[in-house]
Amino acid sequence: MLKILLLNGPNLNMLGLREPEIYGSETLAELETAVQQYAATKNIEIKAFQSNSEGKLVTAVQEARTWADGIVFNAGAYTHTSVALRDAISSIELPVVEVHISNVHARESFRHHSYLSAVCLGVIAGFGRNSYFLGVDALERHISGGK
Amino acid sequence: MLKILLLNGPNLNMLGLREPEIYGSETLAELETAVQQYAATKNIEIKAFQSNSEGKLVTAVQEARTWADGIVFNAGAYTHTSVALRDAISSIELPVVEVHISNVHARESFRHHSYLSAVCLGVIAGFGRNSYFLGVDALERHISGGK
Amino acid sequence: MLKILLLNGPNLNMLGLREPEIYGSETLAELETAVQQYAATKNIEIKAFQSNSEGKLVTAVQEARTWADGIVFNAGAYTHTSVALRDAISSIELPVVEVHISNVHARESFRHHSYLSAVCLGVIAGFGRNSYFLGVDALERHISGGK
Amino acid sequence: MLKILLLNGPNLNMLGLREPEIYGSETLAELETAVQQYAATKNIEIKAFQSNSEGKLVTAVQEARTWADGIVFNAGAYTHTSVALRDAISSIELPVVEVHISNVHARESFRHHSYLSAVCLGVIAGFGRNSYFLGVDALERHISGGK
Amino acid sequence: MLKILLLNGPNLNMLGLREPEIYGSETLAELETAVQQYAATKNIEIKAFQSNSEGKLVTAVQEARTWADGIVFNAGAYTHTSVALRDAISSIELPVVEVHISNVHARESFRHHSYLSAVCLGVIAGFGRNSYFLGVDALERHISGGK
Amino acid sequence: MLKILLLNGPNLNMLGLREPEIYGSETLAELETAVQQYAATKNIEIKAFQSNSEGKLVTAVQEARTWADGIVFNAGAYTHTSVALRDAISSIELPVVEVHISNVHARESFRHHSYLSAVCLGVIAGFGRNSYFLGVDALERHISGGK
Amino acid sequence: MLKILLLNGPNLNMLGLREPEIYGSETLAELETAVQQYAATKNIEIKAFQSNSEGKLVTAVQEARTWADGIVFNAGAYTHTSVALRDAISSIELPVVEVHISNVHARESFRHHSYLSAVCLGVIAGFGRNSYFLGVDALERHISGGK
Amino acid sequence: MLKILLLNGPNLNMLGLREPEIYGSETLAELETAVQQYAATKNIEIKAFQSNSEGKLVTAVQEARTWADGIVFNAGAYTHTSVALRDAISSIELPVVEVHISNVHARESFRHHSYLSAVCLGVIAGFGRNSYFLGVDALERHISGGK
Amino acid sequence: MLKILLLNGPNLNMLGLREPEIYGSETLAELETAVQQYAATKNIEIKAFQSNSEGKLVTAVQEARTWADGIVFNAGAYTHTSVALRDAISSIELPVVEVHISNVHARESFRHHSYLSAVCLGVIAGFGRNSYFLGVDALERHISGGK
Amino acid sequence: MLKILLLNGPNLNMLGLREPEIYGSETLAELETAVQQYAATKNIEIKAFQSNSEGKLVTAVQEARTWADGIVFNAGAYTHTSVALRDAISSIELPVVEVHISNVHARESFRHHSYLSAVCLGVIAGFGRNSYFLGVDALERHISGGK
Amino acid sequence: MLKILLLNGPNLNMLGLREPEIYGSETLAELETAVQQYAATKNIEIKAFQSNSEGKLVTAVQEARTWADGIVFNAGAYTHTSVALRDAISSIELPVVEVHISNVHARESFRHHSYLSAVCLGVIAGFGRNSYFLGVDALERHISGGK
Amino acid sequence: MLKILLLNGPNLNMLGLREPEIYGSETLAELETAVQQYAATKNIEIKAFQSNSEGKLVTAVQEARTWADGIVFNAGAYTHTSVALRDAISSIELPVVEVHISNVHARESFRHHSYLSAVCLGVIAGFGRNSYFLGVDALERHISGGK
Repeated sequence: MLKILLLNGPNLNMLGLREPEIYGSETLAELETAVQQYAATKNIEIKAFQSNSEGKLVTAVQEARTWADGIVFNAGAYTHTSVALRDAISSIELPVVEVHISNVHARESFRHHSYLSAVCLGVIAGFGRNSYFLGVDALERHISGGK
Repeated sequence: MLKILLLNGPNLNMLGLREPEIYGSETLAELETAVQQYAATKNIEIKAFQSNSEGKLVTAVQEARTWADGIVFNAGAYTHTSVALRDAISSIELPVVEVHISNVHARESFRHHSYLSAVCLGVIAGFGRNSYFLGVDALERHISGGK
Repeated sequence: MLKILLLNGPNLNMLGLREPEIYGSETLAELETAVQQYAATKNIEIKAFQSNSEGKLVTAVQEARTWADGIVFNAGAYTHTSVALRDAISSIELPVVEVHISNVHARESFRHHSYLSAVCLGVIAGFGRNSYFLGVDALERHISGGK
Repeated sequence: MLKILLLNGPNLNMLGLREPEIYGSETLAELETAVQQYAATKNIEIKAFQSNSEGKLVTAVQEARTWADGIVFNAGAYTHTSVALRDAISSIELPVVEVHISNVHARESFRHHSYLSAVCLGVIAGFGRNSYFLGVDALERHISGGK
Repeated sequence: MLKILLLNGPNLNMLGLREPEIYGSETLAELETAVQQYAATKNIEIKAFQSNSEGKLVTAVQEARTWADGIVFNAGAYTHTSVALRDAISSIELPVVEVHISNVHARESFRHHSYLSAVCLGVIAGFGRNSYFLGVDALERHISGGK
Repeated sequence: MLKILLLNGPNLNMLGLREPEIYGSETLAELETAVQQYAATKNIEIKAFQSNSEGKLVTAVQEARTWADGIVFNAGAYTHTSVALRDAISSIELPVVEVHISNVHARESFRHHSYLSAVCLGVIAGFGRNSYFLGVDALERHISGGK
Repeated sequence: MLKILLLNGPNLNMLGLREPEIYGSETLAELETAVQQYAATKNIEIKAFQSNSEGKLVTAVQEARTWADGIVFNAGAYTHTSVALRDAISSIELPVVEVHISNVHARESFRHHSYLSAVCLGVIAGFGRNSYFLGVDALERHISGGK
Repeated sequence: MLKILLLNGPNLNMLGLREPEIYGSETLAELETAVQQYAATKNIEIKAFQSNSEGKLVTAVQEARTWADGIVFNAGAYTHTSVALRDAISSIELPVVEVHISNVHARESFRHHSYLSAVCLGVIAGFGRNSYFLGVDALERHISGGK
Repeated sequence: MLKILLLNGPNLNMLGLREPEIYGSETLAELETAVQQYAATKNIEIKAFQSNSEGKLVTAVQEARTWADGIVFNAGAYTHTSVALRDAISSIELPVVEVHISNVHARESFRHHSYLSAVCLGVIAGFGRNSYFLGVDALERHISGGK
Repeated sequence: MLKILLLNGPNLNMLGLREPEIYGSETLAELETAVQQYAATKNIEIKAFQSNSEGKLVTAVQEARTWADGIVFNAGAYTHTSVALRDAISSIELPVVEVHISNVHARESFRHHSYLSAVCLGVIAGFGRNSYFLGVDALERHISGGK
Repeated sequence: MLKILLLNGPNLNMLGLREPEIYGSETLAELETAVQQYAATKNIEIKAFQSNSEGKLVTAVQEARTWADGIVFNAGAYTHTSVALRDAISSIELPVVEVHISNVHARESFRHHSYLSAVCLGVIAGFGRNSYFLGVDALERHISGGK
Repeated sequence: MLKILLLNGPNLNMLGLREPEIYGSETLAELETAVQQYAATKNIEIKAFQSNSEGKLVTAVQEARTWADGIVFNAGAYTHTSVALRDAISSIELPVVEVHISNVHARESFRHHSYLSAVCLGVIAGFGRNSYFLGVDALERHISGGK
């Protein structure tokens, strides 16, 4: 059975509350449950964690190496500012899929650069809540073989 | 029945021949067939087209508006240099998913910028051939509802 | 009798179809006809050509030297990316008027730079379809004397 | 009867005196008269004003809103340095046509950027004295309808 | 009765201790009390919070939406580096006044840019401890009407 | 009795006329009167001056040193382009408060830089007409003691 | 017998016609023949191809891998704008010599950067028509051994 | 007896686990012990602290002013992104030695800039675990006199 | 008899009043008189003019062509921001010597660039009031022959 | 008989010793002899000189004007940093061919810019030791006529 | 017995004479002797050399490969401008420690970049004369084992 | 009696030989003699030195402190590239006047920046050979008093 960490960064706990015209009205808890239910149908176990703290996210990435097979990671704003998270990803040997709800390339220019992408397996951005489901699929496809 | 244009840009006709350590040994024809077979199981029809010519790709995008429900588009090198393709995408009302086989963010810096992303629905990059399958899934999820 | 090439670049074949709030609903064929009729009243013959291909536009510019007295050229997106078209204009001895339907300076920053302007006679931008008529007038004034 | 402000900025009072190989030998007064005569044939009234002072040009733009239908404006060097003139243009509701005698894009790089273009109706540059006549035509075409 | 969060970021707990030639010798606790007493005379209640942690500041901003009418926020060094705090401010509907004790524009160039200003109501910088009192006044004026 | 120069730069004479959705419908004269009345209650005398001319604003700043205790200065567009005004402020020994009606950081990028801030006492921006009242308060607090 | 593709890009079909003070009066056909005759004396067979189309040049590079031992390539303006040609060169295993007739480093700054050089064997620029002959020599020396 | 804080930032808790080809296989705990033993021979007491949290590192720096004579600080990724840590160092009066295990100048370009160096006593980088021992020596030499 | 315009720009009327540690305590009137007296000994007539207005300085430069043999010009802050003054200098045929009292290269970086230098005969900067005397000498040497 | 200076800059005396995987194992003396022997067959005399000193290379270039017909110059690292060598080349009237052993465009970005190229006849880079032989050929072709 | 080259670049012969508030009053000869005496206690032999000439420093680095086990190198100003010294260091196989007396990161921005760091073993900067002693220690630790 | 070092950098030994349309036909020796004769009339002794070597120029600057009262220095190309010469000037306490024969601001952009200006007394550029005479005058005026 595949085990995946579903990791969300700063302000994603505001999902459903914050700027719903961009992010929709589903709360993070509801979304996490939906992803877990979807994954369960594929025999994948999802543990979900969210934090506003860069340091706790670094630690969560580090600890995943002891139990998880991969990470679906929406680092939110830290995507654009955190070398520490990049180093955390580099320090483990798990495949990490960077996901974004919105199309970051259609927003402010400082959101066009990611410190994480170069050390992740790949990136999925712009598909709303579907980005998470596609992230799970991407990890499953990657781990189950095929390049 | 959903109809999707699977569009590939310059040098992707070299798949299986070119730098196999990055792109694998499957040819483009084989990959197109595999995507078509996968899509068929979802009742999606895929038409595939590849060209090395920026102008022909512009025309292919334009014409898709008369028959397709969306585009899965790997623009290859034109991703980084073509305003014309950006304008073509803007000129139609179809959702376009930008896909890349390799993780462009882990390669030369001129591959980190895309003229297309801001006018596409979203981006999927770095998952090898799986990027195409995920692109089909992303379009299907998007068109079938849900944000 | 003055002979002018009315040359349109990529996506201008979408006029009337594409983003009508910016470009209006007149098709390119209709606009070309209107320009030809206007020019005819001034005893000017217009040949119109449009292509999405950079290479075919290069060739059209080159060939104009054998029959035309000047070019009214809306290079569309290639304005911002094509050194080849700049070189083509430099390689002939005809006056070329760069025209744009929209005010490129009020759009994305990558549309603020033109590779063509420095080798054209002048630039007319932002007057909608009128830019073409003014372009014909500018060529006529230039060729008929007066600086 | 249409009323237009023909506004000229710094050093354009040197026309005919300054760098004649670029600007010709006609004086500003002669050129203003020629434009007025041309406009009169179209039932357009032109008031001409020139100043070397950025502040007086700002005031002239502001005052035009009380009597004019549009402005043909050659801001000279202030084109490249004046946010105040940009704000003045934004503060009125008249269409303003930015004109330049020389092809600014073929000169020093600091002349390639205009603070004014983005808030003007459009730009006409490089046609010598003809730029003014084309500017009047552009305003007339714009105001008389048609996009 | 108006309720305001007085939020201070990293190193502001060193007020009175750190670089007194720039920041004075009053401690943060003393300053918070002074602001609270001033606000009380205007029937405004102030809750004060300081943290060196970006994540805790993000959370404090988020939680303010449930009880406060506005925030007076000195984000200290995070002003210049935190997209997460920008997103937190965007995610609530409260007016936020960005304040700085020192004149950030007279210090190192990396302090000239703020990620927060564009999503705040306004900015007050350079008035020493008075910046906080003016921040309270600004919020009161804004909330009590008048633009 | 404290004496303050209330100085306004280019286009602020258009207040109430220009872009009212940004600047409100109160005219400059009305606003100046309101600030004077507010200041009078604090035993502060305000002299108001506005000019579209950079040179006259330079002179006004210079002359203030002979009679005023401070300046509340909205330099408008010259904020972003005038080294001369910066030097004028440096050449006197009065505290100058830079104020802006709109939040300049939420507008075009060329409005994010101020030549004046580094030589002013402080900056207040984004509070609409309140910025002027807060500017008077800031000067009063500064001059009456306390850092 | 060595086989070499002599490949010329946009506007090189204007050789002898275009800017003869820079490029001389020999036509491309004459030059190709001269290079072929020179190569024949070294028992090298040259096939010559020119196109104004980026896409056709990409295809020509790709196809050379099936029959040629190397390419002498003057990509003209595409040198500076084409990532697609760079990828085409990377996708084959043939040595490619980048040649230029003029000294690109003595011309406009946008001609100083080449997307191709880093993936070519080497570069020869500035020797007029001799650049082609030296290009053939360079390929022969490289292929016949010696580093 | 000299007292030194040995402070390590994000991901240094992964020492011995993370990228051993760069950082070696010794764990952080083992390294801290080795440094303590080395320092003891010089009659120096070392307290060691590591955190992944920027905020906790800020606090650790602040608190060192109450008990330590200096800090040997490997801020890891925060070296390149943290103005808060720079301000914390500026806010105390202790000498701080910035150390790095790897040669940061031979890695990605974003690791070439340090926000901390300018406010530290000095920098030691590239000597592997020896950087820590040299850091202790540098502090001892500095504090015991001699510039 | 040689005639020279001694032209001073914004804030130079504050000489002797402004930042005396940089500019000395001599007033502009005193300095102008000293330069005139020095010039008289060389049979040179000096007319002195100062203005804070960019427009008036433009006009002064233009008018000098009717009576002067050259200009010694300290444009103050406009040195760094005025394309209009550059154009004015270009529009006359007189030699202009750019002078600065302070060493502009040792001050803020925005003072390192001059729009005027490239169209002046030469530059003299950093010699205090002596810069003016050397400017007169330079003009005299230039006009009296010798390169 | 043609006379050529074969000039080598810093570290080229390490050829055969330094990084042989890039530069081969042939020493500079051996290479110089090989070039001389090759040239002799064409009735060309080669004088060879190498120095690590920028000043001595400047002098060598200057002196070549008294005896040589051209220079084949590998300036090594000074290619990227020496304006003095550029000026030396400009100060003589000999054709200079810039050569590089390695493909500088495939190395660090600071090696992509040459101060020398714009004032040399042309550039040959990337062909290993063959670059020198091709450089001799290029000079011979150039001097013997033909552009 | 370990042998080390102690190499000093331009202006370090002015130590004790130049800017003593930054560099102290000890002369270079005195410092070299002190380092030699310190090294002798560790059974290390130091040869000291200083030159103002970039070329002689290049040669000194090259020659060290025949007799030394490592280099302690303060390249002074050439640190920031010399690619030739970088290449010299790359061309030998000895470990080189880059040292600086002052904290270069706290000085002008052009001193923040080093051409040498990336090819050196490591960097030690900011510890005054102690930097040299620490440099010797660093080499000894490196060579005697341990990473 | 005042003693001045007249120091000339690389390629100035080519004066009279090199690009006479820019630099005239007088040789350096002739010019040095002319300056010495001029200085003698003012009771100033000039020692002249020229070198193509950056290191020798550094040494010449350093040694001047033992005998000279000031330096008139044309550093030629090293003006734009030499931090070592900047440091040499900083290391002595003599006033240095930077002179240039040509107007460097009217030439290539890399000649617009000087590493030396900020540490020199002042700059004189563009007056041909007169720059040297004015340099002597400037030093005399400076040393004889008056700011």
